[in-house]
Amino acid sequence: MTVVTAGPIAELTASLGDAVVTDSDTMIAYTRDQSLLSPSGRPLAVVRARTVDHVVETMKVAHRHAIPVVTRGAGTGLAGGANAIDGCIVLSTEKLDRVLEIDEQTRTATVECGVVNGDLAAAASQRGLWYVPDPGSRAVSTIGGNLATNAGGACCAKYGVTGDHVARIKAVLADGRVIHTGAATRKNVAGLNLTQLLVGSEGTLAVIVEATMRLRRKPNRIATLVASFGDPAHAVDAVIALQAVADPSLVELMDQTTITAVNDMTRMGLDETAGALLLIQCDGDTAAAEADRCAQECRRAAATEIHVTTDPVESDGLLQARRVALTALERRGSTLLDDLAVPVPRLPHMLDAIARIADRHHLIIGTFGHAADGNLHPTIVFDAADSDAAERAHRAFDEMVTRCLAFGGSITGEHGVGELKRRYLDTMVGSVERALMNRIKTAFDPAGILNPGRAI
Amino acid sequence: MTVVTAGPIAELTASLGDAVVTDSDTMIAYTRDQSLLSPSGRPLAVVRARTVDHVVETMKVAHRHAIPVVTRGAGTGLAGGANAIDGCIVLSTEKLDRVLEIDEQTRTATVECGVVNGDLAAAASQRGLWYVPDPGSRAVSTIGGNLATNAGGACCAKYGVTGDHVARIKAVLADGRVIHTGAATRKNVAGLNLTQLLVGSEGTLAVIVEATMRLRRKPNRIATLVASFGDPAHAVDAVIALQAVADPSLVELMDQTTITAVNDMTRMGLDETAGALLLIQCDGDTAAAEADRCAQECRRAAATEIHVTTDPVESDGLLQARRVALTALERRGSTLLDDLAVPVPRLPHMLDAIARIADRHHLIIGTFGHAADGNLHPTIVFDAADSDAAERAHRAFDEMVTRCLAFGGSITGEHGVGELKRRYLDTMVGSVERALMNRIKTAFDPAGILNPGRAI
Repeated sequence: MTVVTAGPIAELTASLGDAVVTDSDTMIAYTRDQSLLSPSGRPLAVVRARTVDHVVETMKVAHRHAIPVVTRGAGTGLAGGANAIDGCIVLSTEKLDRVLEIDEQTRTATVECGVVNGDLAAAASQRGLWYVPDPGSRAVSTIGGNLATNAGGACCAKYGVTGDHVARIKAVLADGRVIHTGAATRKNVAGLNLTQLLVGSEGTLAVIVEATMRLRRKPNRIATLVASFGDPAHAVDAVIALQAVADPSLVELMDQTTITAVNDMTRMGLDETAGALLLIQCDGDTAAAEADRCAQECRRAAATEIHVTTDPVESDGLLQARRVALTALERRGSTLLDDLAVPVPRLPHMLDAIARIADRHHLIIGTFGHAADGNLHPTIVFDAADSDAAERAHRAFDEMVTRCLAFGGSITGEHGVGELKRRYLDTMVGSVERALMNRIKTAFDPAGILNPGRAI
Repeated sequence: MTVVTAGPIAELTASLGDAVVTDSDTMIAYTRDQSLLSPSGRPLAVVRARTVDHVVETMKVAHRHAIPVVTRGAGTGLAGGANAIDGCIVLSTEKLDRVLEIDEQTRTATVECGVVNGDLAAAASQRGLWYVPDPGSRAVSTIGGNLATNAGGACCAKYGVTGDHVARIKAVLADGRVIHTGAATRKNVAGLNLTQLLVGSEGTLAVIVEATMRLRRKPNRIATLVASFGDPAHAVDAVIALQAVADPSLVELMDQTTITAVNDMTRMGLDETAGALLLIQCDGDTAAAEADRCAQECRRAAATEIHVTTDPVESDGLLQARRVALTALERRGSTLLDDLAVPVPRLPHMLDAIARIADRHHLIIGTFGHAADGNLHPTIVFDAADSDAAERAHRAFDEMVTRCLAFGGSITGEHGVGELKRRYLDTMVGSVERALMNRIKTAFDPAGILNPGRAI
């Protein structure tokens, strides 16, 4: 063993002791997120911070030596935003996992950034409250990571994304200074909105270490509806029409490829003749009545089969079909999962474009997603061992993003830009706007050490 | 008449013709907002922009000559944020008043910044849709001004503030370049959130010229409840308890001073023995049931009188009491209207502090506000001709803000910092945070010409 006596690692170890890891075998688990497409480098060290002071000390050392810092939560990102950079410090926040306070009167929870979404939801539930944002990764992903990527989920249709539920953030700047953003009050217009600037900034502006999240009272009733359509365009007609008569908490879509994959895995017996399937949930006192209105609109839009239930267990079973969609597709080969959003009326065009791209490149693409938000996850299934197939998969991925932009869409609805989507960012946001974002980045981080080359 | 042949005014006039005003008598109407406490200066010129190009040209000339630009909508601000600065250009956007598009399928409206809030609401209503944000000024204030101050209103309890309803912004930078922020999609996490950075920035970062605002379907039913309480603390107990069983769209509070003033003006016959009165509205399919649950919580919290109605006309009559609160107090003397927000459980302490401050300075202070948000508008009534009274009024104003900060509150819930609240901003947001805000300001506006010395 080499004893390092000077330089950044020695300084980190002197301050942080066993929170610092430099052993390659241990570090390897901290070098990648779940994106297959993005490169990752070899870190100088991994810091597994257990306190806010650990984060502060890490940033001070990194700042002194101009070392890049990549912050990571649970590493469930899908855009390479938390992948290590050569010579960086990976700052893991997973051990900053304390729920600091749940205040029933103000319906807020203050947590450290490494608290797992599902754990916060469970802690809130014990107090009769509800932490709403429900990204697919919620069983393992952290609140800090959810904030850094502004994670979405299924219930955004009614309740919004992670950023819509945050009141305050405590963060550590690139030079180790601590800032507090937002206010304890529901309304606050004092100064610039640093909170929403940090949300979705993917670790490029500051390290989020604590957050106060808003909680809601839990709806007492739910009703769930599943509807099959011959033509995906009819399903989209239904999505538009039903939102004029109801306020569903969830409107999920699955295409035929996904339906078949789910059936094969689960033997759920979903309607495989359907071109698209909608899963809709309404909640609150009027859940059943709203679901009936949704059913009526599905019928008008030529649904071929409709089933409504108010039974919570049966509801959960139906949602399970959507939850396992990606896993079911992964059983068919390697997958490239995309995250595109288009205005809802353009969904038929986007679905059609995806089908054409799949045909042209002789690929299977299963598409599922959050129809009420126009947010689709077309998932390319291919044989990664076949280099030609892999090449076609990458081309198809690229073409889908390009088509999405042509439909007035966003290159990422809820997964973030990370490393993966940077090449589309100028087209998406504009070059003047991107230059402005870079100047804001510099205002926060003049030395450019926080997740450089990511997100913006 | 002097013919100006060179310099900024000549350049403005050459580009913009009669949109440029330099006549003192006309300019006077553009030099102040509705804040009595804030100083205002003498503008070099007023530009009444009719097109986005007018705004672009104005900024180019201002940038070339380093002339400060103060953007104003309808001038209904309450913090001096739109007051003229000596030698500035006042850029009025009130004639940029076209509703560009209402899209029923995506439930959005794209408008120029000078569109009046109430006019947008009416246009949306004609299409069966609802523009939600309802600042008290909505009959005259503009969407651009509402965005620049992140205006609140009564229905924020359930539906949030102006910034919660914006999808995209088109804005002109200090040097005349145009930027677009946000996306046409419901979900978008591409790049930094410039949209929410512009919201509430009070014209210091860019000139908002167009915005795409989200619309909702209009609730089909309402139920309104009025409850009197002997002790204001009991009213706050009710506010906390009822939010655990209902999702009211509006929870307004009036203190005894305000009740009496409203009665004197309207002969409404509100309960003048009450220490506080709550006005509560629930909306949607379950409005009546929710209002009943609210009534039950008011009863438990020792309400002395409760009246519930589902009649829209009677509902409107009850809300009228709250709407005229400020006007009723203004009949008693000059007023200083404050805008403070505290965590809801601290409302009794804040109300108590206000009463003590009124006593100590021998002033009348009527307090009303949005109880569900903890957002109070304590209104000092005094004789402006009496310099001692005016001095006491200013001291009382200052003490109220200081007490609010001590209770963990915000110095402004919905009116903005403007000129009026800048001296409290360091204490509120912190000096590191404020320095960061200033660096962001510089990233947008390196020459510092956009509403300098305001908001941040």
